[in-house]
Amino acid sequence: MTDIIVNKVDKPGVLPTDDKLGFGKIFTDHMFVMDYETGKGWHSPRIIPYGEFAFVPATIVFHYGQAIFEGMKAFRAANNQIAVFRTKQYLNRFNRSAGHLCIPPIDVEEVQAGLFKLLELEKDWIPGTLGTSLYIRPFIISTDGYIGVKVASTYKLFIILSPVGAYYDNGFNPVSIKVEDKYVRATKGGLGQAKTPANYAMSLSAQAEAHKEGFDQVLWLDAVHRKYVEEVGTMNIFFKINGEIITPELSGSILGGITRHTVLELAQNWGLKATERQISIEEVYEAHAKGELEEVFGTGTAAVISPVGELSWKGQKIKINNNQTGEFSKKLFDFVTGVQYGSVPDEFNWMDKVNN
Amino acid sequence: MTDIIVNKVDKPGVLPTDDKLGFGKIFTDHMFVMDYETGKGWHSPRIIPYGEFAFVPATIVFHYGQAIFEGMKAFRAANNQIAVFRTKQYLNRFNRSAGHLCIPPIDVEEVQAGLFKLLELEKDWIPGTLGTSLYIRPFIISTDGYIGVKVASTYKLFIILSPVGAYYDNGFNPVSIKVEDKYVRATKGGLGQAKTPANYAMSLSAQAEAHKEGFDQVLWLDAVHRKYVEEVGTMNIFFKINGEIITPELSGSILGGITRHTVLELAQNWGLKATERQISIEEVYEAHAKGELEEVFGTGTAAVISPVGELSWKGQKIKINNNQTGEFSKKLFDFVTGVQYGSVPDEFNWMDKVNN
Ligand SMILES: Cc1ncc(COP(=O)(O)O)c(C=O)c1O
Ligand SMILES: Cc1ncc(COP(=O)(O)O)c(C=O)c1O
Repeated sequence: MTDIIVNKVDKPGVLPTDDKLGFGKIFTDHMFVMDYETGKGWHSPRIIPYGEFAFVPATIVFHYGQAIFEGMKAFRAANNQIAVFRTKQYLNRFNRSAGHLCIPPIDVEEVQAGLFKLLELEKDWIPGTLGTSLYIRPFIISTDGYIGVKVASTYKLFIILSPVGAYYDNGFNPVSIKVEDKYVRATKGGLGQAKTPANYAMSLSAQAEAHKEGFDQVLWLDAVHRKYVEEVGTMNIFFKINGEIITPELSGSILGGITRHTVLELAQNWGLKATERQISIEEVYEAHAKGELEEVFGTGTAAVISPVGELSWKGQKIKINNNQTGEFSKKLFDFVTGVQYGSVPDEFNWMDKVNN
Repeated sequence: MTDIIVNKVDKPGVLPTDDKLGFGKIFTDHMFVMDYETGKGWHSPRIIPYGEFAFVPATIVFHYGQAIFEGMKAFRAANNQIAVFRTKQYLNRFNRSAGHLCIPPIDVEEVQAGLFKLLELEKDWIPGTLGTSLYIRPFIISTDGYIGVKVASTYKLFIILSPVGAYYDNGFNPVSIKVEDKYVRATKGGLGQAKTPANYAMSLSAQAEAHKEGFDQVLWLDAVHRKYVEEVGTMNIFFKINGEIITPELSGSILGGITRHTVLELAQNWGLKATERQISIEEVYEAHAKGELEEVFGTGTAAVISPVGELSWKGQKIKINNNQTGEFSKKLFDFVTGVQYGSVPDEFNWMDKVNN
């Protein structure tokens, strides 16, 4: 592993008050950067001031989108210990995304070392109020300065950090979700299982139309039958039907969420029946008709658990649990955030401590 | 329409000899740039020296891929007249792509004026050897400097120019194409009909595997049935079966190529039966078995017409027209390139002249 060069800012910035944070708007003083070149491999790991980079207009990522990213979080506990949630899980997924996009794999140990060195330096930027955190955005872009549709030979890896506000301003608010029947996010044989810009570009029109119609998010259906449930904008989806926890299986078109994985582990650990399988939107509606649809919730790094209060499919609306947060959703949220903020013992070793 | 400010380079560069051009590697001295901001609209059209721009790492296009592009060409005729092929067709498609990506539409007249002013300035960069041309790459990227999955509020439009070499070094070489049965490029309800980075990111793995297996390109099948022919990497596809010209219809998952449109118009004008319809790969193979598959060719701005000499589907290879360029392919190529290089009268008004 190469030494990480550190080049500090002259005058450190100041963390805004916790109520002014928002999401992804403020960045800390420094970032981690590394370069790749065919023949040389990943090289020159360094921590430098956050700031602009010069790119020629022909830079290939602008044209052909060969890029990947991750989204993970660091938390400040009441005792001021700073820790990252399930680091390796995210960095391993980063490498799986790299594979799907023909991007050269990273050395997970090396990038993790760079991240933790960066976090040590930026510890004052990590907010402490319950619900706030430091969002960590590793990403890789292809940087060849000429245009031809092919796998690039040069890349840049960045890790940038953004202190983020509480996702739920006034408690846990169930969201209303439109079941999308016109647009499709991804298909088997495509890039749905990778965290890559293409999937998010794909979602813009659907998201914009759903917002206009008054919904918070869209729930995607599969590309082939337009009936099997896939996932929400930036969350996986779970159903509690007659005591059983059900989430769509990882069949190649959805992202394998780290929060999804965490929820499945917890449910099983708590003795519940938790199943990964195909589930059609008809089955969800039928369960509701029979009074067996107990809870619906999304899972993701941003909100952890996001209860769904309403689904709308082809204009047919159903209310879930009276538009109230369900018991299981609440228990999951309390447990996971408890571990993240240090009030619940970390019995599963989810938290990776930063020296501070 | 706002005035276009022109800021010239101090010392103009020199066009390399025509055999050294390649594709998309060399850029001319200047570019056209415009900015967009919600509330202000598209503004500040300007011609400035080609060169680097500063972007913060949080620039949204790196993360969520909200971007579009075009690819068009200018030619130098034997009499030195410079002209662009079907300008409006490309710029109108640019705007349709913008719609699919929630990017604010451009004023086609304004951008066309900017392009032609740029071409006048760069006229010495346009090569003259038969087969060479000036590739024109208009593109728009989203430039907000913060990360959240949403439609951006700031954009940059660029037009960059690249003198390109002859596509066929030693004549018209039929290509060998793998019919892709694992990866999928696009699906109805997705972005397949837009010229956007997502679709090209989607194609990298398939393209890399096909190259390793010795094929030049892949032919995509539809996402739902995996049997209907869609298009090739950066070309539309045509079949000549028993005298009839057939190309897949524009059903929402393929790009409506300008060359495709040109070929359809020409075929009809020449009194041939030319049909846009669903065509399955089985039908193509059956036509071949019956001896009725006369020609297969791709169409695109880069190669104009690219004869297909071999198809391979699930390991089953068929040779088309003895791996020779067909008569109709040759006639199309000669006519279109003849108009482009000024040796055939421009009876359809395809060429837009640059003042030079
Ligand atoms: C498309 C998509 N699905 C699901 C998720 C949830 O994954 P995770 O729990 O790892 O954040 C995300 C967010 O990361 C996402 O972008
Ligand atoms: C995916 C795709 N299909 C088809 C084409 C052919 O379109 P055109 O003839 O407009 O160049 C292109 C190239 O532009 C393309 O990228």
